[in-house]
Order: sequence, then structure tokens, then C-alpha cells
Amino acid sequence: MTVRFGVLGAGRIGKVHAKAVASNPQAKLVAVADAFEKAANDLAGAYGCEVRSIDQIEKASDIDAVVICTPTDTHADLIERFVLAGKAVFCEKPIDLDAARVEKCLGVVEKAGGTLMVGFNRRFDPHFAAVRKAIDDGAIGKVEQVVITSRDPGPPPAEYITRSGGIFRDMTIHDFDMARFLLGEEPVAVTATASVLVDKKIGELGDFDSVSVILVTASGRQCVISNSRRATYGYDQRIEVHGSDGMVSAENQRAVSIEVAGALGYTRPPLHDFFMTRYTEAYAAEIAAFIASVTKGTKISPDGKDGLMALRLADAALKSAKEGKTVRL
Amino acid sequence: MTVRFGVLGAGRIGKVHAKAVASNPQAKLVAVADAFEKAANDLAGAYGCEVRSIDQIEKASDIDAVVICTPTDTHADLIERFVLAGKAVFCEKPIDLDAARVEKCLGVVEKAGGTLMVGFNRRFDPHFAAVRKAIDDGAIGKVEQVVITSRDPGPPPAEYITRSGGIFRDMTIHDFDMARFLLGEEPVAVTATASVLVDKKIGELGDFDSVSVILVTASGRQCVISNSRRATYGYDQRIEVHGSDGMVSAENQRAVSIEVAGALGYTRPPLHDFFMTRYTEAYAAEIAAFIASVTKGTKISPDGKDGLMALRLADAALKSAKEGKTVRL
Amino acid sequence: MTVRFGVLGAGRIGKVHAKAVASNPQAKLVAVADAFEKAANDLAGAYGCEVRSIDQIEKASDIDAVVICTPTDTHADLIERFVLAGKAVFCEKPIDLDAARVEKCLGVVEKAGGTLMVGFNRRFDPHFAAVRKAIDDGAIGKVEQVVITSRDPGPPPAEYITRSGGIFRDMTIHDFDMARFLLGEEPVAVTATASVLVDKKIGELGDFDSVSVILVTASGRQCVISNSRRATYGYDQRIEVHGSDGMVSAENQRAVSIEVAGALGYTRPPLHDFFMTRYTEAYAAEIAAFIASVTKGTKISPDGKDGLMALRLADAALKSAKEGKTVRL
Amino acid sequence: MTVRFGVLGAGRIGKVHAKAVASNPQAKLVAVADAFEKAANDLAGAYGCEVRSIDQIEKASDIDAVVICTPTDTHADLIERFVLAGKAVFCEKPIDLDAARVEKCLGVVEKAGGTLMVGFNRRFDPHFAAVRKAIDDGAIGKVEQVVITSRDPGPPPAEYITRSGGIFRDMTIHDFDMARFLLGEEPVAVTATASVLVDKKIGELGDFDSVSVILVTASGRQCVISNSRRATYGYDQRIEVHGSDGMVSAENQRAVSIEVAGALGYTRPPLHDFFMTRYTEAYAAEIAAFIASVTKGTKISPDGKDGLMALRLADAALKSAKEGKTVRL
Repeated sequence: MTVRFGVLGAGRIGKVHAKAVASNPQAKLVAVADAFEKAANDLAGAYGCEVRSIDQIEKASDIDAVVICTPTDTHADLIERFVLAGKAVFCEKPIDLDAARVEKCLGVVEKAGGTLMVGFNRRFDPHFAAVRKAIDDGAIGKVEQVVITSRDPGPPPAEYITRSGGIFRDMTIHDFDMARFLLGEEPVAVTATASVLVDKKIGELGDFDSVSVILVTASGRQCVISNSRRATYGYDQRIEVHGSDGMVSAENQRAVSIEVAGALGYTRPPLHDFFMTRYTEAYAAEIAAFIASVTKGTKISPDGKDGLMALRLADAALKSAKEGKTVRL
Repeated sequence: MTVRFGVLGAGRIGKVHAKAVASNPQAKLVAVADAFEKAANDLAGAYGCEVRSIDQIEKASDIDAVVICTPTDTHADLIERFVLAGKAVFCEKPIDLDAARVEKCLGVVEKAGGTLMVGFNRRFDPHFAAVRKAIDDGAIGKVEQVVITSRDPGPPPAEYITRSGGIFRDMTIHDFDMARFLLGEEPVAVTATASVLVDKKIGELGDFDSVSVILVTASGRQCVISNSRRATYGYDQRIEVHGSDGMVSAENQRAVSIEVAGALGYTRPPLHDFFMTRYTEAYAAEIAAFIASVTKGTKISPDGKDGLMALRLADAALKSAKEGKTVRL
Repeated sequence: MTVRFGVLGAGRIGKVHAKAVASNPQAKLVAVADAFEKAANDLAGAYGCEVRSIDQIEKASDIDAVVICTPTDTHADLIERFVLAGKAVFCEKPIDLDAARVEKCLGVVEKAGGTLMVGFNRRFDPHFAAVRKAIDDGAIGKVEQVVITSRDPGPPPAEYITRSGGIFRDMTIHDFDMARFLLGEEPVAVTATASVLVDKKIGELGDFDSVSVILVTASGRQCVISNSRRATYGYDQRIEVHGSDGMVSAENQRAVSIEVAGALGYTRPPLHDFFMTRYTEAYAAEIAAFIASVTKGTKISPDGKDGLMALRLADAALKSAKEGKTVRL
Repeated sequence: MTVRFGVLGAGRIGKVHAKAVASNPQAKLVAVADAFEKAANDLAGAYGCEVRSIDQIEKASDIDAVVICTPTDTHADLIERFVLAGKAVFCEKPIDLDAARVEKCLGVVEKAGGTLMVGFNRRFDPHFAAVRKAIDDGAIGKVEQVVITSRDPGPPPAEYITRSGGIFRDMTIHDFDMARFLLGEEPVAVTATASVLVDKKIGELGDFDSVSVILVTASGRQCVISNSRRATYGYDQRIEVHGSDGMVSAENQRAVSIEVAGALGYTRPPLHDFFMTRYTEAYAAEIAAFIASVTKGTKISPDGKDGLMALRLADAALKSAKEGKTVRL
């Protein structure tokens, strides 16, 4: 069975998902929509599909599923509309920056019996997925401590910061999802510290650029997260999980694995320079998993609740950083 | 401009190239041909193209280029036919197992002013290509010594051995091409030693499974090649190049970069298990380079002469191994 | 000039320091003292020195310096006695488990104009020292975030736990010293979380075995520390420091750097199994630095104040873990 | 039991061995001898031993064993003298540059029932020794192919070249010994190629600076050796052994294991800069093994025959390189 897709939003992340859909042998990219006509036309041209309005896609009988890549503040409304229209929905994170709005949205989805997957792409990275598999296979015994390193190559532009909901809801939220994915228990306490070290302007906008977070579960399992908005050596994405019998870790990735040795030492190239090159395989696997859920009814993961839980951790972390105390959930 | 392709041969390597063609935005896979109807139908079905006979493809006005993936003993004839038919030709290595036949074929290609590229895929591996680029950029000074390690995960079936022309013409030939690609000078002497260590049956068929080769150029640059038909830990493909100012090397590749640490030590997964997974990116880049040559006239590399030179090195290595002396070219 | 040493305490750590003294060409091991006669005799025999009582060493005119390796609760008294006796003093950490007692002791040392070095051996590990040097050389720009991983191969015996002052004062204290050594600013806030995951008995003794700590300096620099009393794969000791221009890190160490590759993957041996093998070079360099301070008057580092500051961080971390809030210093 | 040593020769390698002897708890350095009075005095001063003449050491009743570190052309004579004088002899490689002279010397040793160990230090490197142990433990099955990389940081001075016997007898001879140590069978054929790529003066002296060698045993096991007199990135010493079940390899060593990451990539420091720093542990273990042979009668390895066999391989390699053909032994 082939799943027929509409992609809503033809911006940066829309292109990523359109490519993943177009390359999947069990998917057909039928239409894209975007408020900017040129963006929609360009994307449609690249993959030989139609340009339609969001309304047209909502009513289309030749579209089974949509990928929502529009601005964040439209996500919850579009999820509700398309679930009610009977489409399977894949929505880029976050559902909304406000947890109450997310809860309402999830209520609509549940009542409608809708299909909703949320775009935490890292669960589908083959290396991180292999870390999870090693845990599930018992390779390290019982999970005890998780250490997540996540550093962006460089800070986003000011206007992005303004709309992002802040570093915890925009960047650390991915790490909160990975923490939940790997800890095997729900975090019950969050302690965070946040600084402005990279760029003063980020501070002037009320946000932070360098944060450290500790999560603790009911049984005392711990997760430490280290984030920065800048890493001169590339997109630093590492995970290690310590258990009663050992450790499993995922290394950083680079496009080219060569090493040049000379009088100054041994040098390997910088890491991938951005999330789109680093997570190419993850985006493809993510859409494949969504398609499998639509066609074979496999369990949706991450689902709307996963989106909500990660957001609650982000809210708690922000509160902890501001008040200087542990926040319990 | 889009290049319209016919693929001749729908076997293992035919599938690899058909996928590379189908995935390339500047190529269109028009037809496949194969003596086995089912193989042709299956491949055509997977990519939504036609099944045609070789004759039909030869005469087709809607096909610009062919990829020859048929049995080795048909390569030279097909190259000649399709070059004379005005098609650009990409031919899997080798052109022929007999150097005289290759020379005659290249004469026909040259006289016809035809386009012929030979499938030494490793030149297009991003890691090996980066090694070459580092050399070209002057990162290691003047090249002095090249060390190539190439070990297959396991020996091929006996019937393959019989048709292969022997390990030097089948397996080491890739390393001979890489040696020429990296040495910056033509080898003028070959010294080889060959043993049967992996499987006695290979010896009974008159072939070897473990070989070591030294190449030397006119100025004394050296290349050492180490081959085995078996590597329990996966497809071992490494290169290091030493120059007057330093060394550049390409590491092995694995599908998943995780490490599990426990009481017995730190363990990373085996390498890729075969050439098709190891060289996925190389096959795509190879077809892209061929397309660029067809559409933009960029220099063909590797061309027919490269195929001939590698074959001559293979012939010389076999002679050296049998006679126990250095063979000069 | 040769410095003539007495070693007080011939137990595990006493042996380590006696060896470092005996191997140093600028030191002479004159005498050892221990309440257990056999321990003192054995150690004296191994290095061809005398057995004396602590009183005798205090009064000896042929001893310039002492290394205090006796039980923790005797450290402060012995420091005071030997400083007043005019000996240079190297004391194993900690000076005392009680910060007020440490302060009093340091007052005595200061008034006497005595020489006191405290045994935070990790500052002298060649790898960690090279990390600090890279920072000092400007290799990573301005320090922003430090990540310290420190895991023991296995938990100590219960009786050790009881006397240790708890994990923060016994184990994390080394990491607090490294944090101060690398951050370039004094921490002003400590947030810690502590669990019992490895061994329930540790919890029954009122201690923890798994802790995560965040330190923050006045300008917002952060340090994350991850500790466990168990690592099946050996003594896990890593440091990474992130700065405005890059990162510098020190890898783990193992006794033998081989790798075995087979059908199950690539395996390297476990890490060093204990601090004495891991930090062999550090102990030698530490004594050499102490000797240099005695003979050439080079600045003592780490000194008594460093010992006090690390203890205060440990006390603050314990308070934070118990009260669930950030503790400011 | 303590073995009492005399060291003959107080030059570079004499100092290395004197230190190994002085640091060994079961050895006592009694005396050193050197034609240059100052060299002997300096070395004796550093370790608090006497200066004696070679004659005096030969007749000394308080000396059990000697370490011969004099110029190569004196080795065979001194071995004979000291064996006949009843001393256990450790001789730096080579015994002599002439195989016939070595044979005569070994005849004298055998007739006298003397103890003779030859200084192939690499067998005692903990990493290479662990490679051998992994083979002996069956970790890789039956040995099939050995790959040895050995590159000096820089070429020796011309006067050293002149006395060295040439690169095969001076440098590659260590690799020939390692090959024999690891192959598990005696090589029966040698094929070598030799170039002058690093320094023309080396060629003018009749020597080479870059060589590649293939050894083959009776059953067809192969060893490839790659040598250069120059490696800008340090002392490159690697071994890998391939067997029927897998591979074992020993990595390069560096003094400090840190990595600096920045915009240009990830850089680790160069390797050790010379054999004395690279093989510090090996020299200590070598003398310890010699002492064990003297005191406990453990089998001498490498013995005089090992020295002779390596020299024969060197002679064969030189002949092969000059004549362009495989030389059988």
C-alpha cells in the first residue's frame, strides 16, 4: 500500500520532509502548500507534485496523510483540522509552546481517534536507535545514568530566538525526548542552570545559550544534559548510557572519515555542520516509521503525549533555572 | 538536461546501478534488459521503467546512455556495439579479462569518438576521494608510499571464482586502480606473492585467496597491497598515503557507530558486510560523474585506458607470483 | 639539592608515595613510620630506608620533608606538628572532613610560614595537565563549559564508606578540584543530585553511589560532573572543556592498546582497573612538583586553600542534594 | 637473588639500559665502562656506580652479567670474551653485520654453555606482547597475514648510515624479528623493494630510505613490512595480524592523549618522537626478562639464533632489492 502525502509548509524543514516522502517507495508526494507561492512552486517542481492550498489538501480525497511544517503557532490548529478531516498527521515539533494548548489539542486527537506522530527525529538516527536497541537487548543491564551532549554549530538569528520559546523549549526539548527514550522511567525532578556565554544579544532577548540540566526519575536514575548554541567544530551530538553491567555510547558523525598526520599532529575533519546533514538518515527513517504506522498500525512513537511530556520538562527546566531550585513534576 | 538510461543486466550489480540512476535527479531510467525475463521484470517494476531487449535499447532514440552490467565476457562486444550506436557507455569492470581484447575494444571506442567510463567505484567513495583531494591540496607533500588494505568478508562461490579471471584480475584490480589514482606516477614494476590460506577449493580451481603486492614507480614511489578473501569482522577497506610532509588515511566504515563497554572491554560493531552497503555513496557519485561527463563534457575518469592499465598490472602480478620475480612493465 | 623524606603511613597510598620518592633522582627516602610494625618494615625493606617513629621523624635533623599518608582524622594534627617542626609537608587529601578544622590548620601553617601541598594527584596527570596547558595556550578561547566524568571500577568496602565522609567529600572532591583547576573562575553555586543505584548497603550507611553535579561561576561558566561508584569497564576518567573557540578533551587510558576484531566486532581491552595504575605518572609528577617547590621555591599548587575550597564545594553539594535546591557559596 | 651488572658502553643506548638496570629491584648496577672517560663518569654519577675498564669488568667477581652497548663491530668479540669469563650476556642488536661472524660467535657461546640474549626490544613492548598473547590465546585463529608499519621520525646522520650496515640490517631487522615473533613459522622467501625518496645523500652512501618487503613461510603465510626513514608525525610503529578467525592490532602510542577540536577539525598530538620514549616500558621489561633468565633459568628469547635469523632475512632482503627477484632461504 502506498500512502499519499500532502506537505504543509515548503520552508527549510518542509523540504527535508518532502525529500524523505519522495524517496520512500511506499509513499507518494501528491501536493505541497505554502503561503509563499514561490516556495511551494519550487518544492513542487523538484519532486513533480502539485501545489495546493491547505484547504484543498484538507478536502482532498487523494491524500491520506499530511506532514505539518508550518510555523509553530499554527501546529495545534492544523493538527486538529486534519485529524478531524480523517488524515494521518505527522507534525514537526513542537505541537505548541503552551502546554495547555497541547493538552487541548491532544484531547481533540484522542476524541477523533486520530493518528498523530511528533517529529523528534533523533529517535530514528541509526546510531541512537542502536543505543536504545543495545539497552533493550540487555547489553548494559539496568539503566542508571544517561549523559547527553548537544551543541549547535552556531546560534540562530535573533528573530528565530524570539519565536522559539527559548532554548529549553527549542533545543533542549530534543534532549528531553532522548532522555525519556533512554531512561526507561519518567523523570520526576528537573534541575537546570542557564547562562549567556555565547552571545549577549541572546540574553537581551531574555533567552540563554548555554545550559546544563539534571533529570532524576522516581527510582533515582539520572540524566545530565549539556547544551550550547555554539560548537566551532561542528554539530556535536553524543549520547552515553551507563547501566549496571556497562555503558553504551554513540559517537559523533562526520561527512568524511579521513585523518591527516603531520608535524602538528593527527587531524580529522570537523563534524557535520548542521542537523540536516547530520540527521539525513533519521529523517528518512522517521517518515518510514510513520508510514508503517499508517499502513500496518504499528505503535506511533513518538506520539502526542511524548510531545507534551518533553514540553513539560522544558517548562520545568526554565522554572528551575530562573528560581534556582529543583522542580518536581 | 536529463540523461536517459538503459541498464543492460538486472543481476546484483545491475540493481545497484539501476538504483543509482533512478535516484539521480538528472537521470531517467528508461529501460532494463536481461536474458532472464523475471530479473528484468522485477527490476523494471521496482523503478517503473520498461523491459526491452538489448537490440531494442541499441536502436532506441529515447536512450542516451547505457550501463553495462552483463557477464564479463560480453562487455567488450557490448561496448563496441553501443559506442557505434552513439550511446554513452558506462561499463562495469573489467572490460575484458584479456588485455589484447581490451586494446582492440578501446581502439574501436577511440575511432568512434565514443564516451566510455569504467566502473572502478572506489574512486568515488567520499572518504577515498577526500584522501586524493588532500594529496592534491598538498596536505602531505610529495607522495612516497601508499598502503592499501582490501579484504572481503568471505570468499565468493566456486563458480564465481572460475569465471573471475583469478584474484588479481577480480579483486586486486580495484587496488591497482586505487594505487594508480593515488601514486601520481605509473607503476613500472610489480612484485606479488600469492597463497591459498582461506579455502583449499580456491587453490584446486587454480586461484589464490591471500595476496601481497608491491608496486614501484619510475621515481621509486612504492605501493603495498594486502588482500584476503576473508575478514570475519567485515569488509576491510583502508588506504594510507605517506608523503614528504605527512600521511593521509581513510578509516574503515560501519553502519552504526556505537560502542558497548563492559567487563570484557570496549566493543564496536563489525564493519559493513559487503561492497554494496560499503560503497552506496560511491555508486551514486560514480553515476553522477558519468552524467556530468555526458552533459557537461567533464573529463571521463576512470576511462578505458584506466581499465586497461589496471588489467596489465593484474596480469603482471599473476606472472610475478607464479615466477617468483619482479615483473617490469 | 636532594630533599630528604620521611613517609608517615605505610598503607596503600603510603606505598605509592614512597615509590615516587624513591624513584626521584632529587629525593632520598630516609625513613618510614607506621603504627603497624610489619607494614613499616616491609616498606622500608623494599626501598632500603629506616623505620622510625613519627616522633623520631619530627625531631630528625636528616629529614627535610614528610609525606602524610596516615588515616584522615590524623592529617590536620600532623600537618600542624610537622610545619611547626620546620618540615615541608605533603599531605594526602583531605586535610580534614570538617571545614572548620581545616581552616584552623591552615591558620597554623600560615602563621608558621610553613610549606603545605595537598594531594590532588589529577592535576599532575600528563593528559589532564595537557588539557590545562591547551587552555592556557589559548587553544579553545575563553572557557565556557567543563564536563567531568569520573567513575570508579567498583564501590569501596563498607568500612571505608563509613570513614570517608561520603561520596562528595571522598570521590567528587577530586572532580571539584579539577573543576576549579579548569574553569578559571571560582564556582559560586552548586546544584547536586544523589542516588543509590549501585549498592543498597551504601544507602543504609547514609551515603550515595551515583551523583550528578552542576557548578556555576559568577560569569555563568558551568561545570557538569557525573560520578558513579561502579564502572564494569574500568576506571573511567574523562574531561572535556568547551571554550569560545573550540573544545579540548582527555581520553581514557588503558594499560594495553590493542584491538581484536572478529565476527562480533572490534574489541579493545577494559580501562585501567584502579587509581594506582591509572595515575602512576601523576603520582611521580606530583612529588616532583613538591620537590621543586621545596628546592626552588616554585608556587605550591594545589595548596591548603585548594584543599579547603574543594571541601566547601563538597559540603555544598551534599546540602544541595539533601535539600533539593541550589546552594550558593 | 640480585643480579650484579656491568654496562659496556655509556652512549645513547648504554644510558637506556643502565637506567633499566638501576630501576630494577632485582638488579644492581655495579660498574660502567666506556672508552670516553667523561661518558663513563657521567653515567656512573647518575646511578651511583663505579667506572671500570672492560678488562676489569671481565675479571670482576662482583659482576654476574654484562650489557653490551659498544659499537657494533666490537659485539661479537665481547660476547665471546664475556661468555668465556662466565658472565651472562645481554647484547644490543646486532651481534655482527656479517652472518658468518655471527655464526662463529654463536658457536663459541654454545660450546661454552653461555647465556646470551639479543636486544630486540620490541618483543617486550606491552602492546606488541599483548598482540602475541592474543594470538597464543587463540583470539584470531590460525595466523595468515602480518602487516608491520615502521617509520622513523627522521633519518639518522650520514656517519650512522655508513656504519649501520644499511636500512635492512639496521632498521628493518627489528621488523624481521617481529615477523618471526608473530608469524608462527619461519619465512622461506623474501621479496624486497628499496628506494631513495627521503634524502639523496642516503643514496649516495649506497643505502635506501624507503623499503617494502614481503615475507612468505612454507605454508604460505605472508608478512608485509613498510619502512621509511621519515615520518613527520612521529615514530610510527604499528602491527596487525590477520588470522582465520579475526585480526589483532596494536595502535600507535603518544605521550599525551588529548584532542583539540576547532573550526579546522579534531587534532591529536604527534606520536612519540623517538624509540627511547616510545619503548621505555619495553626496555624495562627486556632487562627484567633477562634477569629472570639468569636467576630462574627461564628460556632466553630472543637468543643468539634469533639474532642470526633476522640478519639472514636482512641479507636476503638486500639481495632481493638489488636483483629484483625473490630470494629463498
